Order: sequence, then C-alpha cells, then structure tokens
Amino acid sequence: MSAAWNPRASEEGETPPRPELSNWGRWGEDDEAGAANLLSPEVLLAALTLPRSGEVVQLSQVIGDPKAPRNGAPPQHFMLHDAGDYLAGAKAPSGFQTAVDHLSWATHGSVTHLDALGHVWYDDQMFNGYDHRAARSNGLRRLGIDKAPPFIGRGVLIDIAKTKGVTRLDPGYEVTAADIEEALQSAGEALQAGDCVLIRTGWITAWESDDVRYHGDRPGIGLDAAEYLARHDVALVGADNSGVEVIPWAPGTVCPVHQFLIRDCGIYLLEFLDLEELSRRDATAFLFIASPLRIRGGTGSPIAPVAVL
Amino acid sequence: MSAAWNPRASEEGETPPRPELSNWGRWGEDDEAGAANLLSPEVLLAALTLPRSGEVVQLSQVIGDPKAPRNGAPPQHFMLHDAGDYLAGAKAPSGFQTAVDHLSWATHGSVTHLDALGHVWYDDQMFNGYDHRAARSNGLRRLGIDKAPPFIGRGVLIDIAKTKGVTRLDPGYEVTAADIEEALQSAGEALQAGDCVLIRTGWITAWESDDVRYHGDRPGIGLDAAEYLARHDVALVGADNSGVEVIPWAPGTVCPVHQFLIRDCGIYLLEFLDLEELSRRDATAFLFIASPLRIRGGTGSPIAPVAVL
Amino acid sequence: MSAAWNPRASEEGETPPRPELSNWGRWGEDDEAGAANLLSPEVLLAALTLPRSGEVVQLSQVIGDPKAPRNGAPPQHFMLHDAGDYLAGAKAPSGFQTAVDHLSWATHGSVTHLDALGHVWYDDQMFNGYDHRAARSNGLRRLGIDKAPPFIGRGVLIDIAKTKGVTRLDPGYEVTAADIEEALQSAGEALQAGDCVLIRTGWITAWESDDVRYHGDRPGIGLDAAEYLARHDVALVGADNSGVEVIPWAPGTVCPVHQFLIRDCGIYLLEFLDLEELSRRDATAFLFIASPLRIRGGTGSPIAPVAVL
Amino acid sequence: MSAAWNPRASEEGETPPRPELSNWGRWGEDDEAGAANLLSPEVLLAALTLPRSGEVVQLSQVIGDPKAPRNGAPPQHFMLHDAGDYLAGAKAPSGFQTAVDHLSWATHGSVTHLDALGHVWYDDQMFNGYDHRAARSNGLRRLGIDKAPPFIGRGVLIDIAKTKGVTRLDPGYEVTAADIEEALQSAGEALQAGDCVLIRTGWITAWESDDVRYHGDRPGIGLDAAEYLARHDVALVGADNSGVEVIPWAPGTVCPVHQFLIRDCGIYLLEFLDLEELSRRDATAFLFIASPLRIRGGTGSPIAPVAVL
Repeated sequence: MSAAWNPRASEEGETPPRPELSNWGRWGEDDEAGAANLLSPEVLLAALTLPRSGEVVQLSQVIGDPKAPRNGAPPQHFMLHDAGDYLAGAKAPSGFQTAVDHLSWATHGSVTHLDALGHVWYDDQMFNGYDHRAARSNGLRRLGIDKAPPFIGRGVLIDIAKTKGVTRLDPGYEVTAADIEEALQSAGEALQAGDCVLIRTGWITAWESDDVRYHGDRPGIGLDAAEYLARHDVALVGADNSGVEVIPWAPGTVCPVHQFLIRDCGIYLLEFLDLEELSRRDATAFLFIASPLRIRGGTGSPIAPVAVL
Repeated sequence: MSAAWNPRASEEGETPPRPELSNWGRWGEDDEAGAANLLSPEVLLAALTLPRSGEVVQLSQVIGDPKAPRNGAPPQHFMLHDAGDYLAGAKAPSGFQTAVDHLSWATHGSVTHLDALGHVWYDDQMFNGYDHRAARSNGLRRLGIDKAPPFIGRGVLIDIAKTKGVTRLDPGYEVTAADIEEALQSAGEALQAGDCVLIRTGWITAWESDDVRYHGDRPGIGLDAAEYLARHDVALVGADNSGVEVIPWAPGTVCPVHQFLIRDCGIYLLEFLDLEELSRRDATAFLFIASPLRIRGGTGSPIAPVAVL
Repeated sequence: MSAAWNPRASEEGETPPRPELSNWGRWGEDDEAGAANLLSPEVLLAALTLPRSGEVVQLSQVIGDPKAPRNGAPPQHFMLHDAGDYLAGAKAPSGFQTAVDHLSWATHGSVTHLDALGHVWYDDQMFNGYDHRAARSNGLRRLGIDKAPPFIGRGVLIDIAKTKGVTRLDPGYEVTAADIEEALQSAGEALQAGDCVLIRTGWITAWESDDVRYHGDRPGIGLDAAEYLARHDVALVGADNSGVEVIPWAPGTVCPVHQFLIRDCGIYLLEFLDLEELSRRDATAFLFIASPLRIRGGTGSPIAPVAVL
Repeated sequence: MSAAWNPRASEEGETPPRPELSNWGRWGEDDEAGAANLLSPEVLLAALTLPRSGEVVQLSQVIGDPKAPRNGAPPQHFMLHDAGDYLAGAKAPSGFQTAVDHLSWATHGSVTHLDALGHVWYDDQMFNGYDHRAARSNGLRRLGIDKAPPFIGRGVLIDIAKTKGVTRLDPGYEVTAADIEEALQSAGEALQAGDCVLIRTGWITAWESDDVRYHGDRPGIGLDAAEYLARHDVALVGADNSGVEVIPWAPGTVCPVHQFLIRDCGIYLLEFLDLEELSRRDATAFLFIASPLRIRGGTGSPIAPVAVL
C-alpha cells in the first residue's frame, strides 16, 4: 500500500489503513484476480453443501424496470425486429417469426454490476501495483472484469436494517464494524475467509419514495467496516445501494471504501443489489453465485447474482 | 402445438413434430418459464452434489476478443473515463482516480447468450399460446428473458466432435439422435429430466481459420436430435456455434429447431458457447450454472455460464 | 384529409381543419417531399438575393451543452481514442496522432432536429395517403427524412416574444394567427409561398432557470396559427421549443398541430431552435438554409440550420 | 509549423512542407476555426451570385444505404416506436400515432462527415499550437467541430476522373498539383482564396463492385496536391473517398495529408462525398453549403453538403 496515501488524512487522530491489510503481492506479482483467489475449490465445495431447500433467490434488479434504482440515464433496450413488423407486412419465411434486440448502457450507472479491480485507483497505481496507464480508451489492459472469475462460494447476509429494526437506514448512516458484528451475532454467524458478504441497508426502498432523496446522502459502510471486512478476508462486498459505501464520505476523502477495498485489498464490490427477498426469508448463510460477463478490459460487468437457500 | 404448422412439410414422408412433445399448458396457462420449471429444488440439490474437484470452467466467449466468433458487428465498449484523462490533466479529487465504461451490443449477434422463449415463434403464437403481439418496440410483454429463472442444475456435455474423433464436425453436418446416444454411451451417461445439455461441435475453431467459412454451412443439431432431447425433458440445449442448429436447414424450413424447441417445447437455447476446455477435461456430467440478466422484455441475455467439476 | 378526423372534435362550435388545406395529391400521388416542393428554383434564387451583410447566424443548439434544452436522456458522445491514450503509451505511427468519436442519441429528444413527414399520422394513414405500415423496425419505407430535400429559401422570423415585449411567453400561451399577423406587421413583412417560418417564443430561456418548468405547460402555436400558416403555403415551421406547438393541447387532442401540419399538409416542423441571436439582430427576412442528414428511413434528422443576413 | 516534423522525412531529396504554408497564428492566437476564416462575408456574398438554375445537388451519401461506402460497422438506426406497435395493440391517444428513432454511429467510419481541426495532430500539438491534452474522454476542449462555422461559399469541382476519361482512378493513384491544374484548366476555372474544393476520384463506384477492393489501395491527393491547395488558400478539401488522401501513403508516413492540411494549415477535410451527380451535370463552380452539427467537443460531424447550380 502506498505510504503517501491516506483516505482519512484530514481527520486528525485517525488511523490510516494498515499496510498489513494490503493484498498486493499476496497472490503473486502477476495476479489480476485479487481476493477472488480466496474462493478456492475447498471454499466452493463447502458452499455447495449449504443449501437445504434448493430455493433460488435472485439478487439483481430488473433492468429497465422504472422502479429499479439507477444512477444516470436508464439502460437502453432497442428492438431490432418484433411482431409489429409482421403485422405491418414483413414476410415470415417458411413461417419463421422472430424478435431480436440491442442493449446499450453504462455499466456503473444503470444496472446491478460487479466492479472490476481496475475500476478505481489512486497515486497512479492500481491493485497489485499495476501502472494506471493500463486504463485506455480501448479498455483495461490489466485488472479488467475478464480477469475476475465466477464467484461461487458462501454468501452471508449482513442485514443491518433488520438488526436495527428499520425499513431502511437513515441517509448518511455509516455502517460500522460494530454494526456488522451485531448483525452477525444476531444471525448466529461468523465470517470466514472467502465469504461473499452482502450488506443490507434497505436503501433500495428510497428510490420508490423519492428519486432526489435516493441520490443524496445515503447509508453504507465506512472505512471502519471496510477494514473489518478486509481483516476477515472476505472476497466480495455487495450492497443494496449504488456504491456500497456511505455518503457523505469522511471529510477530505472521495470514495475511500472503493479506494481501500478495491485498490489496496483487491476485494470486489457488487452494487445495486436487491436484498429485500433475501431479508424476508431470514437468510443468513447460503450458496452465493455471481458470474460476471467476460468483457475484455471492462471496468465492470452487469450481473445477475443469486442465493441458493 | 398448432396443427397447421409443420417445419418439415416440404419433405414427403417425414414425421411432423408430435403433439405429445408440445409443452403448452404443462406448467399452467400463465406460465412463462417453460422447461426451466424442470429445474426443481430437487434437481438443483442433486446437481450440487456432482462436483468432486471444485474446479470451475467458464463456458462463455470473451466479449470483445477478436478471436471469439460472432454474427454481425462486434460488441461496442466505450470508455467514458480512463487513466489518459488524468495524464491529460483531469483532476483526481482527494486522490480518487477511476475508469468507467459503456456497453452496446446486439444480444443475438455478438455475445454468448441465452434466448428468451419469446425470441421466436410461428403462426402468430408464441410458446404456451401467447399472442405474438406481445413483441413490441419496447420489448416482450410475455416470455421476456426476465421470465427465465437462473439455471442451476445438472449439465451434460454431449461431445460429438470428440466421439467422432475430429477437431470439429464438417460444415452442414447434422447431429442426430443417434449421434447423441453414441456420445452419451461413450461417456457412460444417460439423460435426466431437467438436464442442461451442451452439444459440442467444435465449430468455434472454424472462426480462427476462416471467417467466411464460419458463417456458411455449419454443423449443429437437426429436428431429429431436437425431438430426442425434448422427449428426454431437457431444460436447456446449448452449443458452441451461433444458433445450436445445423445449417442448411431442411428444405422449406427456416430455423426449425428454434421453432420446435423454443416455441413448441419451451426449451431454452444457449448460443456461442466455448466448450473446448470442458472437452479437454473430459467432463461429462457436472454442476451447470447460467444466470441470465433480468432484462425487462429482453429477447435474450448475454450470459456467462459455468461448469463446476 | 380524412373526413373522420377532427382534432377539435371535443370543442363544440369549433371548425374542423378545412379539407382545402390538405395537400394530399397536390404534388402527385407518389410525392414524399410535401411542402418542400414549394421551395422551387425560383424561390431559392430569390432567397439568395436577400443577404446584405453576409453574416451567418447559427440556429441550432449546441449538442452536449448542458444549457441546451432537451427532452429525455442527453446525447451520448463517446471518444474512441484521444490524446490520453498517447500519454498512456499508445504508439503514434510515423508521428500520426488522432482523436475519434462515436455518437448516439434519440432524434426527437435531444437535439435540434427536423421531423420527417412520416414522423406522425392518424387513422393509419400518413401524409399523402401512405399506409402507416410503412413505419417498421428498420425505418420508414415512405416519407423518411431521406425524402426531405435541403431547405434553401426565404426564412421569416416571427418574433412573438419581442412583439409582446417579454423575454419569453407564458407557459401555456397559445400563439394565434392574430399574434403572427401582429408580429409580421410590426416587422413590415408578409408571408410568401414557400417561406420557412421561425416562431420565437423565448421558451429556450426557461431551461436555464428551471428544468421542471421547461417540460410542463409551454408556449407554442395552436391550430388557429397552424391553419393560418398552412393557408399561406409555408414550407416549414420552426420554433425555439421542444415541439413547436402549445402545451396543453386543446381538450381531447394530442399534438394537433403535428397531426395537421405534418400529416394533412406535408409541412415540416423544425424543433429545439435557438432564435435568441436572430432576435437580438432584429432579423426579419433572410436566407434560410437547413440540410437534413440523409438517413434512410429516418423519422427525423439532427440538423444545423442557419440564417444568412 | 514544427521544425521537427517532416512527413516525407524518409524520402530523400523531397522538400518538407514549407513553414510559410503553416497557418498557425494567422487568425489570432486563440483562433479555433482555421481556414474557415477565409469564408468572409464578401466571399459568401459573392458565392450567392453563382447559381443560375437554382437546382440543388446533394453531395452526401445516404446513411444506412448498403450501397454507400463506409469504413467499419454500419450506422445503427433503432426505431423506438413504429406503426407495428399500433397494429400490435398500442393505444393511439386521441388518434395520435407516431414513429420515433435513435441513431448511433462512428463519426469517421460510417457517414459523410467533416473532420474537426482537433481530429489529428503530431508532436503533441494541434493546429494553432494547441496542446493535444485538449483531447480527452469527454471530447475536444479545443478545435472541436462546434468551433467550425457553417461553410457557405464557392465550391469548385476538381473532376480528376472525368479529366482522365475514366469512371474512377486506379487504386493508389496519387492526384498531384499538375492533375488539379489540368482539371481546372479543362473546366476554365481558377482557384480563389476561401474556395471549398471537391476532388472527384470516382472511387465511390469501387464499393459497388468490391468491398475488399474499396478498403485497399485507393486514389486520392498526396502532399504535392495538398501543398498546392494550401498555397491557394482553400478553406476546405472534400473528396469522394474515405479520407481524401491517396493510399498507400509515402513510405514512412501515416496520413501525411491529414497532418499537413488539418494540423499545419487548419484546412478542413470533408469525406465520403458523393460527387457523381455533380459530375454528370458538368458542374465546375457553384454555391457550396455545408453546415456541421454543433457537437460540443466532437472530432467531426455527420453532414449533408449541397451544391446549388
């Protein structure tokens, strides 16, 4: 970890991210998968034994649903051919009729997505010390989302909103390490290396009531919680908000949780989740599956993660 | 199944698709998931017990890789911000640096994708009898890809190319029911209801050697094999070519396998797979996972399926 | 004009659009250019004699300028290659350096544009009696913007806001025939056949002060003014708002001015103009030039019209 | 002009571009319009007197026409709503029916377009000495196409193919200063400052016969002709090929004509013209009009230029 950087530099008396939490070099000098390395075959095989009912809960938002939160312009869905064309006279050769479409969207703005490790950095260096000049107009030459393997492992729901007894946490509420411990204790779970941790803030429900409210201050994790999760060697941190971390950031910092988890630790962030159904079912630990599209040099991928109970 | 339709009408003496193979009404009048209903919790739980090594094999092509086959214009990957911008003077507030992107592509032309059940039809009726007028310029009102659940079940590799001892099957080679049985026998497997069947033709290697060759006649399954698979109640049929079925089609027909499997049987097609690694590993039956993006009214979804061995 | 249609049907005592204002068949059964036929060589040559100073005033909004009004998502401008790439290490073969881009936008939502005659219709018939089934997923087979010739003729500024002594007209203000006559009289001009008429409401300034205000009730012309302009055989009606016509529409009607001018009369609408500079210069009659992109089957075209004074 | 640069450095005995042809600083240190400054009101007013017949000839290719040459993927034209939707049951409120669309294309690849002065450069400096770091992921901060004014002036057709008595020039044929003089003499014309010069090679007809042939060696102007045109102070050079200049380039150079005309001289290039009709009419000098879309920071603009005879 760069000695020069301190996401909390402006806060006197705060401890900077500890060098021992950095994962640079841990999986080799040429590694581009980061904490996904924690999802070993053993971790995977153990996770496969978790399901009891075989029920599947989808954790992604519906793309194109006006009720699904997003950040920026909505996804674009163009139909290239549809039934109307046949009604208007298009021929159906040998009876064959078809509808086909085209998709266009900003990865980080409009859909449930997994961040690539090359999505954010500071001091001109990305995770594992890669030079940031890898990020060019034709994509990421290092740490693109095509370097992220499928995530198949143990998922753990950290249901902060439920623990606090609210529909959703307050705007600007910072989820702390203590909050996470409280939620785990309440669920009777403990974190394990390689876990895929899903933080439920309930913030997805803010979209329904007020768009403007949604994009202002919002609940999420802060550096304290991020360090706690990094110390427990999780592979992935997801949340039901637009960027996992709390807004406002600590004074003098911009996206400190992204900077720390992605760039220092190589831990993946999964954003715009829908955790409502999982919460309704009182899920705690489960088989978690998230397979990113293999987009060459992509800064992230739209994704459809699931929990198997 | 519509009595009026016969994808082999022009071939004298041929048997039309048998009405008993139609799955209309089988899972209820309002069903939009089709053969995915076969992936019951029991089927899923049984599939979770298959993996021995915990190794994961990715089955999708790399999006944007010029060596990956496609049909039409390549996927578009636009970088909205990258490291070059910082080098050119863009500010990094509080040290935060980021790369973000935008994607644009035709679902059925340029990426590994799962077809929605509303993707094809004939006689103005889609699977389960839905009126084709559901397919409009703003998407599918019925049978969109958002109605397809995640596929988590048993995958079976039908490695025709390996059984025949070739790198890839010949252009225009029709994979038959007998071929499938031969491959199964050789692998010591038998089909089960709810299986996700992956047909390996080796055709993906034709792209490397010749683009023009790739889009001409090609190997794939014909109606004979499709009926065999439908009779065995598979949930999904994937292949390592651009449309699962053999080209040329039987005289007087257009996409007869699409018409039969999707529209009559509600069985899903998965296209542009890369099955080379799976074949190298001599995989036969395994845990198969494919979770489509929940695109509201989409005619299909880019997807990153995996096999767990 | 269809006898069955009456955009004012719900207003008792109102006169329906008079059949004599319809231009169907006027320029031949196969005509697709409509009132652009009025821009004869004679009209063009006469217009070329109007300029005195040779000064050019641009009438389009700047695409991508956040201060430019739009309706919907902003235009997308993707850079495919830029200077940052060279700074990040891209080679410049033989010294050659380049920046290239990609554009993506909705014609009618985000840019100054000319409507094609096939953009709107009613009773399943387009201008000149063309069957609406010409409008399919691959574009307009009739009356596409590629059938609209370049407009080079006399432009006349109808500066209603200036005549009324206001920065902009009130929301919902309906510009009437009397208003147009008053503005013309004040400018000492009279309409001629083939004129390209530009209506200034000042509404473009509403965007600067309030986005929400911009898209609510707004000033524009109503059917009374539209009929007046049609009676004077203008070729084109432009305005500095998002749709030329006043909102709210008369009760029981939707876009009645579009329906009447485009579908009944074949008169072109030009939207999202910036007429502020033209007004500041007290322009009245001038050489007007607007050359639409020849988009095969397009429902309209982004355009950069100019006035030469 | 940079002393260090020499697009012909590898050709012994060749004269490098002369510093006196550079237009840096000529129209002021802050100028971003370059040779468009030559289109003075006087030049414009004189050009308005040229037309005799008032006939308009369109010089752009039809966008989306498969017979129109392009370089790369075809333009994308998505219909957002069309007649088929009404036929499939969409409501037409108060009778209103509409078709709307969305466009997506690469500026330099797929349409008739005008290059911005910031499109190409060398030695990290753009025209007029602007630092190339102006070219970032959000567009050109200097020399974008929004800085190019409408071109309204004298157009001159340099019909090399006709002068040589061929349908189209041979692949790799370099149009020279002598060729231009020959064509001018044959047409009885002489160049004037501010002229918009259109070079006809006939290469557009190569697309019809062979796509592969189109993108290989092709006729166009070389540096000799470019210097001749620069010396005559033309404002714009257009051609009926994909990049104005001859391919192959002189050994050791890449796009030398682009580098010289755009970066050194601030002279505009107009590409993918269709000059066939203009040639058929034996046009020589005429009123030329080309009004680029005002795309903020654009590297070029799709455009629909016309000649008025």
